Amino acid sequence: MQQVRCGVRGVFVAMNDTATIPAVVLADDAGRLMPIYVGLWEAVSISSAQNKEVPPRPFTHDLFLDLMGKYAISVDRLEIDSVEDGVYYAHLVLVSDGRTESLDCRPSDGIAVALRAGAPVLVEEGLLAAAGQNESMASMVDLSVFLQK
Amino acid sequence: MQQVRCGVRGVFVAMNDTATIPAVVLADDAGRLMPIYVGLWEAVSISSAQNKEVPPRPFTHDLFLDLMGKYAISVDRLEIDSVEDGVYYAHLVLVSDGRTESLDCRPSDGIAVALRAGAPVLVEEGLLAAAGQNESMASMVDLSVFLQK
Repeated sequence: MQQVRCGVRGVFVAMNDTATIPAVVLADDAGRLMPIYVGLWEAVSISSAQNKEVPPRPFTHDLFLDLMGKYAISVDRLEIDSVEDGVYYAHLVLVSDGRTESLDCRPSDGIAVALRAGAPVLVEEGLLAAAGQNESMASMVDLSVFLQK
Repeated sequence: MQQVRCGVRGVFVAMNDTATIPAVVLADDAGRLMPIYVGLWEAVSISSAQNKEVPPRPFTHDLFLDLMGKYAISVDRLEIDSVEDGVYYAHLVLVSDGRTESLDCRPSDGIAVALRAGAPVLVEEGLLAAAGQNESMASMVDLSVFLQK
């Protein structure tokens, strides 16, 4: 099982005739893209983290980081490692006092947390290869542009 | 400073001619009501906790509880203790290994977490008295009814 480190290319909204679905798009160093469809609220939170915004009151993901800070828990990495019926599965690998814990999560929550913690996002090679073959960015607009409409 | 234990009466949407705003309504034993305006996503999460729904994948607040569970952190109580420019301030009181920590949070996150943990929600008496004088439930519809429209 090979894992590939990915960055967040951006947060977009995929639009077609019947739906508008927010997506966070991951990319590896070779430029392969992997869109993950997320909720609008999660998209806003990820975008906020990517832009290093400091909200007046903590978002839920900020609260998650605050909790970790209080108890000296750090994020080692996010692993996105499987897909089932189009739903990606992920887990956060946490470290505290030398002990490692794995926390099952949605990729959206995991990315929102990992970005805030400055932790790497690792994607299973097979998922990245499969996503790159099927997805197009042509119908996507940037979330910030979408929200200003 | 006197605190009053409150329950969650329900999650509603306040509607007028120009806006629809989700609100979680707290109530004390004497029937005094205190609506707190929240985001739609937070409203859905609070409603999910109140109805003891088990989502197929963890909500962000479920992930928060999962994190606490991994590290034997428990919620002692939520305290809603001040208001500024119409914005309520709250903090979660957490206990782990006999040590108490206070975590600044939005009431919406705090209520979503406290409900899931079965922890009490305490409201400063002055806030409850003030809220009861100004608010009406007449224009509010239940969130579940609103979402089915």
